Amino acid sequence: MNRSMIIYVLGTVFKLEGFFLLIPVLCSLLYREQEGLPFLITGVISLGIGFLASFRKPDNHAFFLREGCVTTALSWILLSVVGSVPFVLTGEIPSFLNALFETVSGFTTTGASILTDVESMSHTALLWRSFTHWIGGMGVLVFLLAVIPLTGGGTINLMRAESPGPSVGKLVPKIRYTARILYSIYLFLTVIMLVLLLLFGMPLFDAICTALGTAGTGGFGIKNDSIAGYSSAIQWLVTVFMILFGVNFNAFYFLTLREFKKALSLEEVRAYFAIILCAVIVITLNIAGSFRSIFAAITAAAFQVGSIITTTGFSTVDFDQWPSLSKGILVLLMLIGACAGSTGGGIKVSRILFLGKSMHHQVFSYIHPKSVRSFKMDGHSIDEETHRGIQSYFAAYLLIFIISVLPLLAEGCDLVTGFTAVAATFNNIGPGLAAVGPTQNFASLGILSKWVLIFDMLAGRLELYPLLVLFSPSLWKELI
Amino acid sequence: MNRSMIIYVLGTVFKLEGFFLLIPVLCSLLYREQEGLPFLITGVISLGIGFLASFRKPDNHAFFLREGCVTTALSWILLSVVGSVPFVLTGEIPSFLNALFETVSGFTTTGASILTDVESMSHTALLWRSFTHWIGGMGVLVFLLAVIPLTGGGTINLMRAESPGPSVGKLVPKIRYTARILYSIYLFLTVIMLVLLLLFGMPLFDAICTALGTAGTGGFGIKNDSIAGYSSAIQWLVTVFMILFGVNFNAFYFLTLREFKKALSLEEVRAYFAIILCAVIVITLNIAGSFRSIFAAITAAAFQVGSIITTTGFSTVDFDQWPSLSKGILVLLMLIGACAGSTGGGIKVSRILFLGKSMHHQVFSYIHPKSVRSFKMDGHSIDEETHRGIQSYFAAYLLIFIISVLPLLAEGCDLVTGFTAVAATFNNIGPGLAAVGPTQNFASLGILSKWVLIFDMLAGRLELYPLLVLFSPSLWKELI
Repeated sequence: MNRSMIIYVLGTVFKLEGFFLLIPVLCSLLYREQEGLPFLITGVISLGIGFLASFRKPDNHAFFLREGCVTTALSWILLSVVGSVPFVLTGEIPSFLNALFETVSGFTTTGASILTDVESMSHTALLWRSFTHWIGGMGVLVFLLAVIPLTGGGTINLMRAESPGPSVGKLVPKIRYTARILYSIYLFLTVIMLVLLLLFGMPLFDAICTALGTAGTGGFGIKNDSIAGYSSAIQWLVTVFMILFGVNFNAFYFLTLREFKKALSLEEVRAYFAIILCAVIVITLNIAGSFRSIFAAITAAAFQVGSIITTTGFSTVDFDQWPSLSKGILVLLMLIGACAGSTGGGIKVSRILFLGKSMHHQVFSYIHPKSVRSFKMDGHSIDEETHRGIQSYFAAYLLIFIISVLPLLAEGCDLVTGFTAVAATFNNIGPGLAAVGPTQNFASLGILSKWVLIFDMLAGRLELYPLLVLFSPSLWKELI
Repeated sequence: MNRSMIIYVLGTVFKLEGFFLLIPVLCSLLYREQEGLPFLITGVISLGIGFLASFRKPDNHAFFLREGCVTTALSWILLSVVGSVPFVLTGEIPSFLNALFETVSGFTTTGASILTDVESMSHTALLWRSFTHWIGGMGVLVFLLAVIPLTGGGTINLMRAESPGPSVGKLVPKIRYTARILYSIYLFLTVIMLVLLLLFGMPLFDAICTALGTAGTGGFGIKNDSIAGYSSAIQWLVTVFMILFGVNFNAFYFLTLREFKKALSLEEVRAYFAIILCAVIVITLNIAGSFRSIFAAITAAAFQVGSIITTTGFSTVDFDQWPSLSKGILVLLMLIGACAGSTGGGIKVSRILFLGKSMHHQVFSYIHPKSVRSFKMDGHSIDEETHRGIQSYFAAYLLIFIISVLPLLAEGCDLVTGFTAVAATFNNIGPGLAAVGPTQNFASLGILSKWVLIFDMLAGRLELYPLLVLFSPSLWKELI
């Protein structure tokens, strides 16, 4: 295990977070809020630690998958702990556990909040909350790869450990350029959205926070009623951009190369839009009776479907009041999640496609036992390693899910609350149903429940294994 | 596709059912109930059709996995349709859909009932209901293999398509002897239980029905309060036998050979008992407060845990009133199910073990990428085909589960009812929670919901693929 290299990368993460923390400080100067000082102090200390830890670049650049996993997991834990300190120091979230929950929820782009009154927060804190979504969305290590020359063979292992989905590869041969391309698209779309929000009449501060939260598919609102108070034009704009940020970024990359056909032929992207379309139609029909017009029903259905499948978590209505069928479909969308290679969470559409294909293939092989023993995705056969990877992903997903629900039930949650609280955090969505529904929050949960959900948010964002590896005794034997 | 062989086997199934139907006729003579006549008529007609269809044994014995699947699926459908006719003819269950639901629930050993007042039924009908459990428990085709000389290479494909669990193989080289051994153990345990029930003071008729329902892990009660009205000694006896019938029958086979060490070292059986022990302890602690004594709490906890994990479905208390944690654990046990190679349903403990091992193995391979790429079960490496089989089982399980819940929600079930109704039928248990809880029944569900659950019961009992194969257009092209 290359310890000095791990420490070097972690140091760089500290430095980055130090810089990031200066952004809310600027905001506090603008709004003359005293909450800026704790952010400044935390940022400067973080910078200091970062410079110390990454002062000298190690000679040994060897960086294997295990180093990638450990570094990624530790980066996200450090990022969250440091990012939660200002909330405690300003006194806006006095409890460290709540502050950590809120920050993990931010970085993992979950958007589950323990705040009962968001509107009483300072602009400084609100901006930091939304900014954590944006950083977490594309991944802090991908950012690091994009901006810092981290040469050496194994940097793909960093990216692989952090990027969402089973099939993340290099867009272009050099990993650094792949990271830059991804971040350029991400930044470009965010800016476009911001400009459109301003054109549609949203105030600047609201527009910045909403754009950051949408881009990262996070979902922290800066109003107590999330997006419900804005015009339906703005709601549609947010709907469209939520759905766009849930698309596999490979599709956007193809678009930049003007390879429209290639972008449109990605099976995952087509399935993603098909699922959204079906869900919107069924839910619209199911809820139409309780809306004034069919347009209002479509607006609400499309917004909630887009928000849940992309795992953003904004809301415009209290969908906990919807009929069972609509709620059931939303729970289903929670589990499916967005496309791999997007900023969204969940199981990912490509893995669901894989399940369907695996089932179809098995039926076929019962009837024609001598037929070819493999199936394809986007024209490529799926190799043994991907098979194993997806299989063990589902194994871990199911086991973690089940084990996570029990402590919540033990601390008094009812079944729907317990199940959807885990679904909403593990898939990095935000709101669940019942006691953690869109008009509720996570503040009332027990202490153990909050720790479990913090774990679930991190595990979900890092696609399980990079975090699980940390719990292996044989790793610690090598590390210490 | 060997059509004549399929027809021959189906004819034999008709004959068998004809004979089976004569057993309730005997019961009707004893109790002088006129309900015997419809059973007699149905039985005779079934015998007639059976003799016609299996009059001449086909020359071509070729019987591949696809023939095995098709025959198994069609057998179970025919068995259920024919078995439901007497209920309609006697007028005890006038609606065909309800009668079919009840009969499928019987043969698949589910035990979910649409009857609102079981005690008003004739002895004839009650015996038939419980007897279907017993037939379905070990499998009607395994029975057929045990008693009828069905030579030809591919009979293992019949057994493989019908037996529960991923790892059913031959105990002894000749498939016919394996089937005989299994049925001997099954019959022996049933008789032992019957004798003990009588010794514990249960009336003869009750004892027969309870023994048949326990052996098949079915769960149809003959009292409106299931097993609640019997003494706690009888409840404990039923608990022990439910748990025994959930054990992998390979373990009993080793016991008959006096290979105690081998029987006790089966990983699945050890895990099964460990899960039961943990669940009983946690639930006892969780519910102790609402019981008069700790003994009463253990009695109730052990009975319900045994009933649910073995997918039997008897009940002694209304566990829908228990705290969330206990209900959550019961839902978990519903999904896990019994051992492979037992009469129980569910995902099976061995598949859960597989998930756990797959997860552990994946973590290990992140840290030591060059280590061996496989893991073991009972000392044997898992081959590629088993891997694929388990993977596609989970794929189909998840997709069928999800798709099944939606129609129930559309017909007005709440989330807990919809989810647990599917869990309880798909895993062949019986009662769920909320509107399908232990003191409720399935009568109030909608028409579509009942058809979906009938499908789920059959799919669950046949381990998904043998039934799914029937839906493949490429099969029908070959069959017609």
